[in-house]
Amino acid sequence: MEIKVAKSAGFCWGVKRAVNMAIDTLRKGKNTYCLGELIHNRREIERLKRLGMKFIDNMENLKRGDTVIIRSHGVSPRIIKELKNKGTSIVDATCPFVKDVHEKAMKLEKEGYPVLILGNPNHPEVIGIAGHLKSPLIASTLEEVEAIPKMAKLGVVCQTTLNLNFFREAISTLASKVKELKVYNTICSATSIRQKEARKLASKVDVMLIIGGKNSSNTTKLYQISKSVNPRSYHIESKEDIKEEWFREAESIGITAGASTPKWVIDEVVNYLSTLYKGGELSGRGVCQTTGGKL
Amino acid sequence: MEIKVAKSAGFCWGVKRAVNMAIDTLRKGKNTYCLGELIHNRREIERLKRLGMKFIDNMENLKRGDTVIIRSHGVSPRIIKELKNKGTSIVDATCPFVKDVHEKAMKLEKEGYPVLILGNPNHPEVIGIAGHLKSPLIASTLEEVEAIPKMAKLGVVCQTTLNLNFFREAISTLASKVKELKVYNTICSATSIRQKEARKLASKVDVMLIIGGKNSSNTTKLYQISKSVNPRSYHIESKEDIKEEWFREAESIGITAGASTPKWVIDEVVNYLSTLYKGGELSGRGVCQTTGGKL
Repeated sequence: MEIKVAKSAGFCWGVKRAVNMAIDTLRKGKNTYCLGELIHNRREIERLKRLGMKFIDNMENLKRGDTVIIRSHGVSPRIIKELKNKGTSIVDATCPFVKDVHEKAMKLEKEGYPVLILGNPNHPEVIGIAGHLKSPLIASTLEEVEAIPKMAKLGVVCQTTLNLNFFREAISTLASKVKELKVYNTICSATSIRQKEARKLASKVDVMLIIGGKNSSNTTKLYQISKSVNPRSYHIESKEDIKEEWFREAESIGITAGASTPKWVIDEVVNYLSTLYKGGELSGRGVCQTTGGKL
Repeated sequence: MEIKVAKSAGFCWGVKRAVNMAIDTLRKGKNTYCLGELIHNRREIERLKRLGMKFIDNMENLKRGDTVIIRSHGVSPRIIKELKNKGTSIVDATCPFVKDVHEKAMKLEKEGYPVLILGNPNHPEVIGIAGHLKSPLIASTLEEVEAIPKMAKLGVVCQTTLNLNFFREAISTLASKVKELKVYNTICSATSIRQKEARKLASKVDVMLIIGGKNSSNTTKLYQISKSVNPRSYHIESKEDIKEEWFREAESIGITAGASTPKWVIDEVVNYLSTLYKGGELSGRGVCQTTGGKL
């Protein structure tokens, strides 16, 4: 069995930065809260809980002097204001690329454009972006984009993990009905590289495994992209989800992982598969064809 | 035989305005030149010649006091400057919608965007737009758009008669590789309405006739659109081009005409067909199903 792991699999720069900031804060021994899940990965969250991180859904019980981590997805200015009013100490781990989307969206609004956010209205990143604007439009499907009326002006930003093909179709639709269209392509390059690589790898292997939280937006998109080119694609959270029957008559397995999937979870899967197929090509040819020893 | 004439067939507002300005100037009895063809319609040009208009390809022999008409396609500022230096009197019949493209393209350049013109680089309108810019990019095919490298910023305007589908595809391609994309959809509404109507009419009739100059960009595009939905589409300049064999086993004929096709040329074709099929449904049901008596 040949196992190929995508070079781009796992933590992106922004997530790695947020997790490191969280762990640094915990090491300082402070009473540390995280508003929402730091990243959309259940297993990493469990690890952080063991290290002392407290996860909260709302700000009700926060007290003066508590430390609050803002996760990589970012929040609206209203949340920051409320945290400051409560006298908490804020560790802002918002991904700088997401901060850049906030700034671009506000710039568009200042320039007089109604602003459309392309992305999932229920995702914390989109909620955070929308929170920086007066009256944003949000669209997550082509039907919603088509329903937008003809407009003289429109500014567009997008969720950093948006599917590139949806983005292209949405902009094409908008171009035909907006007289002046200003678009910031704010898809993170980590996202587009990961998506391109997933598509390519999925087309070359017999079975494709996509590792990451079921609640992770970018992992789910990787899975959808992979599935569209290779029906034998499976979204797993850990090695426990793997079923041996998936690999019947397969000679190669491709692996990728979302931007919120820690390296140690990917390692577990690769090690598990290498034990499973230890008599096969794996041991002879090396585990990772494409990682170049990164794993 | 049922004959349906598209409501939008024939002169657009800008062309009608240019022809009226030319005729008004001729009526004043001045020595009147037109730089290039006033409109891309051989038969209208012949009529204007008979009225006394002189058509020239260059400014060499112009003298102080001559009157020069700038056609609806517009020209570059360099031409206007040269005409002024020669002491000629300028009648600027540039379509106000084309002037608007000049202004938008210059605005983009002033704002720091490299400017891409989507359109035919050999068409006088595109040459005129390009003449207002320092170093414009021009693309007329999807291959040319795809060859544009990744860019931080790009501003886009387009030829007023551009095919809407090409425009959408081009913008979709650009959106994926330009970080900040500002697009002015400068396709004239007369053009997009005409194209939509041609597509719709062509799908409903057995044979489709598109009337207009073979050198008319917008007529040729109407023909291409019509041909893509109805293989029995024919581009004609006048009734003399019509072949009876085209209508074998046909029960309906659709007619549209480019923005540079005079009403009298359309009338000639409709009258010729109504004579040809005088025993048919035509006389009973009225010549024009969709013109609402406009013809």
